[in-house]
Amino acid sequence: MTDTSHVQTELDTIVEALEEGKRKKLRKLLRGMHPGKIASLLEALDVERRVVVWQHLREEDEAAVVRYLDPLVAAALQRDADDPDLAELDEEAAAAITDIRHVRESLEEGRYKRIVKLFKQMHPAKAAGLLESLPPDERSTVWEMLSSERAGKILVHLHEEVRASLAQEMDQDDLFAAVRKLDLDDLVDLIQALPAGPGREVMLSMDVATRQQVVSMLSYPEDSAGGLMNIDHLSVRADVRVGSVLRYLRLLEDLPDHTDKVMVVDRKNRYQGVLRLSRILTSDPEAKVEEVMDAEFQPLPVQMPSREVARRFEDLDMLSAAVVDEQGILLGRITVDDVLDIIREESRSTMMHMAGLDDEADMFAPVLKSTLRRSVWLGINLVTAFLAAWVIGQFQGTLEQIVALAVLMPIVASMGGIAGSQTLTLVIRGLALGQVEGGNARVLLGKEMGIGLLNGLLWAVVVAVLAYVWFGSWQIGGIIGAAILLNLLCAAFSGLAVPLVLRKFGIDPALAGSVILTTVTDVVGFFAFLGLATLLLL
Amino acid sequence: MTDTSHVQTELDTIVEALEEGKRKKLRKLLRGMHPGKIASLLEALDVERRVVVWQHLREEDEAAVVRYLDPLVAAALQRDADDPDLAELDEEAAAAITDIRHVRESLEEGRYKRIVKLFKQMHPAKAAGLLESLPPDERSTVWEMLSSERAGKILVHLHEEVRASLAQEMDQDDLFAAVRKLDLDDLVDLIQALPAGPGREVMLSMDVATRQQVVSMLSYPEDSAGGLMNIDHLSVRADVRVGSVLRYLRLLEDLPDHTDKVMVVDRKNRYQGVLRLSRILTSDPEAKVEEVMDAEFQPLPVQMPSREVARRFEDLDMLSAAVVDEQGILLGRITVDDVLDIIREESRSTMMHMAGLDDEADMFAPVLKSTLRRSVWLGINLVTAFLAAWVIGQFQGTLEQIVALAVLMPIVASMGGIAGSQTLTLVIRGLALGQVEGGNARVLLGKEMGIGLLNGLLWAVVVAVLAYVWFGSWQIGGIIGAAILLNLLCAAFSGLAVPLVLRKFGIDPALAGSVILTTVTDVVGFFAFLGLATLLLL
Repeated sequence: MTDTSHVQTELDTIVEALEEGKRKKLRKLLRGMHPGKIASLLEALDVERRVVVWQHLREEDEAAVVRYLDPLVAAALQRDADDPDLAELDEEAAAAITDIRHVRESLEEGRYKRIVKLFKQMHPAKAAGLLESLPPDERSTVWEMLSSERAGKILVHLHEEVRASLAQEMDQDDLFAAVRKLDLDDLVDLIQALPAGPGREVMLSMDVATRQQVVSMLSYPEDSAGGLMNIDHLSVRADVRVGSVLRYLRLLEDLPDHTDKVMVVDRKNRYQGVLRLSRILTSDPEAKVEEVMDAEFQPLPVQMPSREVARRFEDLDMLSAAVVDEQGILLGRITVDDVLDIIREESRSTMMHMAGLDDEADMFAPVLKSTLRRSVWLGINLVTAFLAAWVIGQFQGTLEQIVALAVLMPIVASMGGIAGSQTLTLVIRGLALGQVEGGNARVLLGKEMGIGLLNGLLWAVVVAVLAYVWFGSWQIGGIIGAAILLNLLCAAFSGLAVPLVLRKFGIDPALAGSVILTTVTDVVGFFAFLGLATLLLL
Repeated sequence: MTDTSHVQTELDTIVEALEEGKRKKLRKLLRGMHPGKIASLLEALDVERRVVVWQHLREEDEAAVVRYLDPLVAAALQRDADDPDLAELDEEAAAAITDIRHVRESLEEGRYKRIVKLFKQMHPAKAAGLLESLPPDERSTVWEMLSSERAGKILVHLHEEVRASLAQEMDQDDLFAAVRKLDLDDLVDLIQALPAGPGREVMLSMDVATRQQVVSMLSYPEDSAGGLMNIDHLSVRADVRVGSVLRYLRLLEDLPDHTDKVMVVDRKNRYQGVLRLSRILTSDPEAKVEEVMDAEFQPLPVQMPSREVARRFEDLDMLSAAVVDEQGILLGRITVDDVLDIIREESRSTMMHMAGLDDEADMFAPVLKSTLRRSVWLGINLVTAFLAAWVIGQFQGTLEQIVALAVLMPIVASMGGIAGSQTLTLVIRGLALGQVEGGNARVLLGKEMGIGLLNGLLWAVVVAVLAYVWFGSWQIGGIIGAAILLNLLCAAFSGLAVPLVLRKFGIDPALAGSVILTTVTDVVGFFAFLGLATLLLL
């Protein structure tokens, strides 16, 4: 009696939540309730509402609830919930569905089970990408519905900012559950991405052994070999026979992902070389490991920066490599899949930096947050813009007399800006590839100045003619031509010099390069044009 | 007697070449000569010249010549030629030496053997990078000295333009020799990069079998799975036992590079699944392949675009994947090392395109060639610049009366340009990642407009105050403030709209986006500012 009444009250709150469409509240209520209670509640509801409530039930709880449900009701609900067109989706097929609209529509229709199923069948990386392309509120709606295991897998693939925010949305138990499923290197990444508070919580939730490993790995900078490595590698002694390695592997039943080689060590666990699986397969079981191992294969020092690691993987076409400390002790291994991410981010972040953007930031970060981030860049640009304006200001007298100059002056500046940015981009890429340095800078300068000269002459003539046609004055034509030539030469020079100098001072050329460059080309452009005009026309 | 006189004359030409420092000619002569003749010639020369000639001798000829040489002379030459600091360089160590200056200096000193040794010990990819960072003439000097085998390996890693030019510099026999050493997929890449003429020559130089394979692979577009795949994969039948697979592999002695799995096919060579090496190692030899194979593992359709292939590899952390035709017949496999290049190029080329540059182009391409390439971009920009100028031109009357406007107007334009490029870059990356599409464009628009509004208000006030301080007119301050707000809003809108529209029309947003955007922000900026001023101040 009390029980039913109790259900009654909860029923009311649920119904209330339904009426007001408070889905979040509804899910909260359901999560708190005992499966049996949820079951009786479902039965108490009319079919339509029943389905809605069912849609909000987390998949982990489903089974439990069904156990208490009237079989007919349960059957009906499950029939409704599962999607014919999704039922037989395998991972690949799901990975192909990236139609964001499709997801958002299903969300609006409240067909949560459909979404969850989709995300469940998608590869974590794909799911992460899809999550990132959802607006925050919808993002967290989906997030709440995912099983903690899924959540853990997906967390790893999210960009830092999104990752941190979603991890904080989870209630601790779920977060801990999710974390327990992670590889050590992913776990470390996650903890580094989390704010201090939750990070500590997660640490404390782990068993001592794991925590110690994590702590030791946290001691390496995130963007170093140590930060990238995992410790799931297999190692064998150099003096054993291939046959016994084969038996050892067979005992393991399943090898760690991306195992293409086992590490060979001495009895002090010092790195000796690697033994490729293909060699194990093809060589005589009686042979000693040291006879068939690849001793030339160099390990990566634990403090090697990740950019360098990535380049090494690219250059040597490696699938995995050992990581060792200063004493040559084997610490772990890095696999190519971790490197893929670095390579992808590396050049993409260069592009973002050139626009003053942070590529770890959430595309849908709160407006205010993004505004402040970007305003910095606009502020810096404003200073340079006022500098250019100040230069113009020096020639107000001239402008008053010949207003045509005011009309034409932006042309000089913008041509310089474009030409400069071409050189700048070329050099920034060259620096990233290690193909531009003191050694060949002079040659490159010669070439760029040559291009600047030829393009300068070409466009000087074109603009001069156009200016004459427009304002009927050969003088103005000549002056703007000369100004453009000057500006393109200076653009070529600074397009090369600016990034090299910034690099010298340890500043990322991609970040500051373009602002400084446009400042130079604006100032020089306006000064040359208006200066020449003042000299020659007044 | 005739012989010596003959040597005599050749000696003269050689000496002549030495005197005039005609190294190229010298190398040509040496290549034509019989080893014995070269030997007697070396002995005939004084020590100093002898060393110089020796430096120009190609390494493949060295051994032959030494056979004819007086042992003492030979010893002396070799002692001199080899570098203590390079002698014990292993590949890794050499890979670390990228000091372009170091290479160019040794070139000037004519220490060719040193260079050749360095390039020989470097990984081909690294060597390619180093070659690309040398000026053309020095580049071809090094190139001539390399053994054809090395050359072949390096060719593969060069950017298209450099690759084609160097391949053309080689004389046919060397080119053919180089080509013979290449993997099929690399061979196909090379032929596609070569101009029609040499390309055909190379084709004809191959044996019929290879040629047919190449032809069949050329039938797939370069940027498709077919263009990426190699045919060195191993395949086994589903109905055999693991034990016999093991025996089969052992017979091969060495497996193809990056073999992490063998493909499983039926008797019609239709793809059935994959059998991972790790599974082979860990599963019972008596088991049937079909019992332990991974049948879920999806093959790549041969016509899948390479971008898509790369994404698939990233998302599913694959090391290699099978390529099949429409009937599911196994054609070949793609390995992760080929994918690395795609991923790296993909975003890097986006960056280059945003500056109107071609990322396959040679950094040291002839000045005239580069000038013409870039002038296109400048030309397009000029049109837009004149458009902006024309807008200003409409307000000459206003400018004549209030010259302050001319001073301030560039600020409005440049602030809009920066804000717009931030949104543009964000969207271009989003499109590349498949995270921006119709489905969430509206949400993103809302967010960007929000940012535009806030930053607009912020900087409108700042600029207004500064303008007042400068020109002591609240009217001008208010007008420029309003103009900036307008321009930032329009920048946010077009920063999102422009790339989406371009994409719709199949135009690369990275290529055309920035020009169109700056046009919009310039035009709107000038129009808003000068228009408002005309309305309110006159």
